[in-house]
Amino acid sequence: MTIYHETFKIQSDRRPTFDDVTEKVQGVLKKSGLKDGILLVYSQHTTCSVIIQEAADDVNYYGTELLMQDLVNVMEKIIPTCRTEGQYLHPGPKHIVAGLGRNEEASWSLNTDAHLRSVIMGRSVTIPVENGEMLLGEFGRIYFADFDQVRARERNVRVQIIGE
Amino acid sequence: MTIYHETFKIQSDRRPTFDDVTEKVQGVLKKSGLKDGILLVYSQHTTCSVIIQEAADDVNYYGTELLMQDLVNVMEKIIPTCRTEGQYLHPGPKHIVAGLGRNEEASWSLNTDAHLRSVIMGRSVTIPVENGEMLLGEFGRIYFADFDQVRARERNVRVQIIGE
Amino acid sequence: MTIYHETFKIQSDRRPTFDDVTEKVQGVLKKSGLKDGILLVYSQHTTCSVIIQEAADDVNYYGTELLMQDLVNVMEKIIPTCRTEGQYLHPGPKHIVAGLGRNEEASWSLNTDAHLRSVIMGRSVTIPVENGEMLLGEFGRIYFADFDQVRARERNVRVQIIGE
Repeated sequence: MTIYHETFKIQSDRRPTFDDVTEKVQGVLKKSGLKDGILLVYSQHTTCSVIIQEAADDVNYYGTELLMQDLVNVMEKIIPTCRTEGQYLHPGPKHIVAGLGRNEEASWSLNTDAHLRSVIMGRSVTIPVENGEMLLGEFGRIYFADFDQVRARERNVRVQIIGE
Repeated sequence: MTIYHETFKIQSDRRPTFDDVTEKVQGVLKKSGLKDGILLVYSQHTTCSVIIQEAADDVNYYGTELLMQDLVNVMEKIIPTCRTEGQYLHPGPKHIVAGLGRNEEASWSLNTDAHLRSVIMGRSVTIPVENGEMLLGEFGRIYFADFDQVRARERNVRVQIIGE
Repeated sequence: MTIYHETFKIQSDRRPTFDDVTEKVQGVLKKSGLKDGILLVYSQHTTCSVIIQEAADDVNYYGTELLMQDLVNVMEKIIPTCRTEGQYLHPGPKHIVAGLGRNEEASWSLNTDAHLRSVIMGRSVTIPVENGEMLLGEFGRIYFADFDQVRARERNVRVQIIGE
């Protein structure tokens, strides 16, 4: 039994982004040489999620797949985009001071909606591996979702495989 | 350390179904002979989820456990059942053409609600195994949820155990 | 490859509680001596969840971190606190009889909101371990959430590590 780790990066934007990372994860699995086991795709960021869904084929003007935009629209109803301080309880005054101490701008903490969406969607998926293939089903694709709308950033996608 | 896989099937209906698969999963664990490890119950379908909850004892006229019907009722408020094209952005025109190319009926793609509910509920559960038993707690039961209401289908429930 | 289990306890209250268990889980990892693998933090209770989020720094008058109170406020909109029988379908009459047979009070079953919130938030998190450290990212903290508001109880937090 072997444990294999690898990390790759995606670039987010100032709107929710959904990067289809299926092929990159397949590349990691192939490189690992493991044929049987479980594979974890994991976000180490508190405003991101990893989800599995079908590809929508169609995209909107921003290039977002329509099913993912439907997901954003549902989230917008229950967890509206944070547009100013006071809309949510968080961030409070100590949190802002802590951020300023890290040379962050105060507005970078106005991503409460993204934190809450990340909790609901979860930060990882676990996928069985058999005969060197992830068992994604006929339509399953792996998306790295970044719900943070306050700044564009480079994000880490972690893959870990335990198997043989 | 051993990796054990098994798949069994359930039959869905044209309403959300919640199959209690606890005993079937216990049967897989027993058959595996593994006593210690982790067990993954996994859906390979993009409109299904696996969840753990207590049994409700009571059912509605359709045979749905009342707690699961409460869950459907909550989902109906935030992600209403898709009743016609245009209600959600997805499915768009390319997605419909792709489906027709697989000899699907166009209406089979009107399951956007089920895709979104599946994202929120997640597609797998991971359960610790000790002394040959899943640690489900006093009331935990494993349900395979199929949110797809457009057609009744046979679905695959995958179980994978890593342990010794 | 080794499998390591440990359980510790937290005390809940008659409001949703969010215990930051990060240091306790780090202690379990250190005690295990494992350096590489995956770590599962798991709730065996059907009204609890395990989530990863950033620390809010600020708390409300009850001591609840503000980001977690925002989460409760969102949940309250879509799954309101159950205040009396008949508000949700569950618990039905057979469920109440079963509870009374275990010497429970009928009102203890009025926690339907907590069961539903637990389904949406999930009952475990899986975290990669490298070089003896959990990969939580710069801000990730592990919270054990108890959504049950009908009674204060001692709860079990299970940690399982597979690694070497």
